[in-house]
Amino acid sequence: MKNRVNRELPAALMAQMNLAPFTSSEIGNPEIKRVAPKVAVTTGTNKVAESLAKVIKETLKDGMTISFHHHFRNGDFAFNEVMDQIIAMGYQNLTLAPSSLTGIMNDKVIEAIKKGVITNITSSGMRGSLGEFVSRGGLKNPVIFRSHGNRARSIEEGEIKIDVAFLGVPVSDPAGNANGQDGEAVFGSLGYALIDAQYADKVVLLTDNIVDYPNTPASIKQTQVDYVVKVAKIGDSDQIGSGATRFTKDPKELKIAEMVNQVIVNSPYYQQGFSFQTGSGGAALAVTRYLRQSMLKDGLTASFALGGITKPTTDLLEEGLVKKIMDVQDFDKGAALSMAKNSGQQEIDASWYADPHNKGAVVNNLDIAILSALQIDTDFNVNVMTGSDGVIRGAIGGHQDAASAKLTIITAPLVRGRNATVVPAVETVVTPGSSIDVLVTERGIAVNPNRQDLLEVFSQVPDLNLVDIKELQKMAEEQVGVPQPLEYTNRTVALIQYRDGTIIDQIKQVKD
Amino acid sequence: MKNRVNRELPAALMAQMNLAPFTSSEIGNPEIKRVAPKVAVTTGTNKVAESLAKVIKETLKDGMTISFHHHFRNGDFAFNEVMDQIIAMGYQNLTLAPSSLTGIMNDKVIEAIKKGVITNITSSGMRGSLGEFVSRGGLKNPVIFRSHGNRARSIEEGEIKIDVAFLGVPVSDPAGNANGQDGEAVFGSLGYALIDAQYADKVVLLTDNIVDYPNTPASIKQTQVDYVVKVAKIGDSDQIGSGATRFTKDPKELKIAEMVNQVIVNSPYYQQGFSFQTGSGGAALAVTRYLRQSMLKDGLTASFALGGITKPTTDLLEEGLVKKIMDVQDFDKGAALSMAKNSGQQEIDASWYADPHNKGAVVNNLDIAILSALQIDTDFNVNVMTGSDGVIRGAIGGHQDAASAKLTIITAPLVRGRNATVVPAVETVVTPGSSIDVLVTERGIAVNPNRQDLLEVFSQVPDLNLVDIKELQKMAEEQVGVPQPLEYTNRTVALIQYRDGTIIDQIKQVKD
Repeated sequence: MKNRVNRELPAALMAQMNLAPFTSSEIGNPEIKRVAPKVAVTTGTNKVAESLAKVIKETLKDGMTISFHHHFRNGDFAFNEVMDQIIAMGYQNLTLAPSSLTGIMNDKVIEAIKKGVITNITSSGMRGSLGEFVSRGGLKNPVIFRSHGNRARSIEEGEIKIDVAFLGVPVSDPAGNANGQDGEAVFGSLGYALIDAQYADKVVLLTDNIVDYPNTPASIKQTQVDYVVKVAKIGDSDQIGSGATRFTKDPKELKIAEMVNQVIVNSPYYQQGFSFQTGSGGAALAVTRYLRQSMLKDGLTASFALGGITKPTTDLLEEGLVKKIMDVQDFDKGAALSMAKNSGQQEIDASWYADPHNKGAVVNNLDIAILSALQIDTDFNVNVMTGSDGVIRGAIGGHQDAASAKLTIITAPLVRGRNATVVPAVETVVTPGSSIDVLVTERGIAVNPNRQDLLEVFSQVPDLNLVDIKELQKMAEEQVGVPQPLEYTNRTVALIQYRDGTIIDQIKQVKD
Repeated sequence: MKNRVNRELPAALMAQMNLAPFTSSEIGNPEIKRVAPKVAVTTGTNKVAESLAKVIKETLKDGMTISFHHHFRNGDFAFNEVMDQIIAMGYQNLTLAPSSLTGIMNDKVIEAIKKGVITNITSSGMRGSLGEFVSRGGLKNPVIFRSHGNRARSIEEGEIKIDVAFLGVPVSDPAGNANGQDGEAVFGSLGYALIDAQYADKVVLLTDNIVDYPNTPASIKQTQVDYVVKVAKIGDSDQIGSGATRFTKDPKELKIAEMVNQVIVNSPYYQQGFSFQTGSGGAALAVTRYLRQSMLKDGLTASFALGGITKPTTDLLEEGLVKKIMDVQDFDKGAALSMAKNSGQQEIDASWYADPHNKGAVVNNLDIAILSALQIDTDFNVNVMTGSDGVIRGAIGGHQDAASAKLTIITAPLVRGRNATVVPAVETVVTPGSSIDVLVTERGIAVNPNRQDLLEVFSQVPDLNLVDIKELQKMAEEQVGVPQPLEYTNRTVALIQYRDGTIIDQIKQVKD
């Protein structure tokens, strides 16, 4: 079976899992029946538990689905503390359904898989040792990768049924009113975790900071919480996004950023009240800086910035250049701290951010998205999941979701080391080319041929270095040559869902 | 069939409606399966509708359940505008399920009933001409009266399934991000309406003020909204609670208020970080004033005030005497305006406020509630629904809910005109005596015998005029005599639910 982006899919496996192939990036107008959790009624004035072990014993059974959020990123102390207990208590056959997995969790996940504690995983992504482990066949059942919007959709429609959510927070009261904005271990928006809190049957908060009732603002509400567990230290804010706020000095990144800004300001979407999502990483931050200069020069302000928020974006809010920030996640401590003091920085949950089966997510209102790529092919399909060696080392994040923008720009260097970024066919399709509009590399700007309107506009601009994407692919090939095709076994180690739940690609086990 | 408060109930009718008799004010620990709405997927960037009539045509069918909120109180222009259209379009057999019905809606409801448009009603209450009309048999099917917390419970459990919610708001953007805090027609908290927005299959916002996307804070979110309808004028903030902020000069009310304050400050709950709910009305506002003086004198501050909020309470917040306000509804424009500027005034939905089938509502954390009564009997059962003539002229509101407080105080004058307030048996039991602790009248303070602990404490206080409630009842009888028993037909015109959905009493048709 091949799908519409020409990917061979495992038909038998998909039939068994009741999964359909990807057909279109258009969502249409289905009617969706939502699901709802079971509620164990309690007066709930004091939910502070005796011990984590007791809570796990009272809530968890073999075969259940457990969830975590990744807002602490590499400063997360909650995941390992919970998994240590679960492993020690000998649970088996759990499904792990976090919003994503960060490096600090890798060793523990691998240990849990090896001991049969975890037998299924769905995540936005995985990197490092865990990606290697799964790519080499370490997990029996295929991982399902979902974007942040798709995870919200899957939970809201019942495809992921969370039995117990373990959610680390920097502050809670004894009844479970909690947020991500106060305390030592702030991370700002609780966007992904809000879905778990709303839909899980059992919600367990972990915190090192229990304050007097009532704690407000309450992003997670007492009505959603079953237990509050006190821990010694829940996380380290400085590890949310180490270095993310430093501007790049890499001349190639700076050049790409400047070119991206040229694309933006010459597009029809750059007008008073426009909106954008940038993300983190050197080039993205540099784009924000160039864009700021253009906005000041042109006397324009943005109606909102979306994301994935960094301090340079909250600076624009404070400067009045951005009117609102719609904030599903903070990528650095500066952005996290900003939420408590700037009322224009609105916390949004993952459904509001990007669930495609919704009455309207914020991404649908987005004008401009700047996204990255590990690879992009001549059909504009993007891979943000596997490296040039075919090994899992990435995350969908909001990539498929933000590509709903009216102008979706991919930024990438033409080559990375000895590997081409622009290729004839990506190893793994994550975001379909039909939702990508422009590719910016240091060697030129390629516009998707399905956007003749943009091509026409941009061809009027003298300084834009427009190039056919096939030309960029050839330039890359000239630089690094044609690589040997990768060798895989026949076994599927992961399935990539598109944001509507259809399968856009599979990842096979790499051959050693 | 008689229930635990000794009320004769219509067994056949209740069997047919699948309703059980009231047994206890203890809620226990049931496990509840929540329900969820259907979602019609749309990109939803612009939901501004051509006309209200078109929206009604696209969403409404005969026999459906429609809902409204009553946050505008008598300044509501949304209800009549929608009902006018629905009546004109000839719909039949609708169930009307608003959070409550205010006087400004009465004529329209009666017209709709007479024309067969509305055949079922559930509400917190009704007054004036509509109460008379229903009490005299004007509606074929019995009204079901529910407290605010019970309405949330009923919606969350699927006992009330709202097909279309029509929600007036003072501000929205074209995608449906709305709040009650900005615009000309502010009413503050959207507490009751938030439940409709979350659970109704179709959500229609009406507003006179459509602002640029994205509108924040978004109490109602774009993910919940199907249509936004522009109207000429949505409401009048000055009519939310006319006169509610004026302090009473009635010496009897002042005396009762002072006695209530004596009960509070001599109770074991009056300590640093205590919490309270007062409500509106002359005596309640005067209590707030006396309590303020005591708190200043004793150097105490409250952790939170709950309700039903008035300006005197938001003044306490600004003064630092109250740390947080948990706000499900604002009773005057001053309190409504305060929400936008005071971050400590937390908007809470009706479930968070008081759904008894919850993981913990705020009322469960409440120390002291001051509530009113039309009648109270010698078993401390309270009637806030029918007058001394047996006619419907009240509302449960949060009465049953707030009576969960550790110290629930009923304030009432001993008699009103020629009618006793303290009676051998109330006409209609709304709140069971088992959840009432103290009655304060100008002639004395009665403590519920099931609170021997309080009796012991209060009997040590020299100036508290403690009286047995049977004595108060006799004093009242001496003043106004024994009234003729009221005459009713055998027909049930309304059922009163307790907050868990059981039936605590019925209201029969009055004889002309």
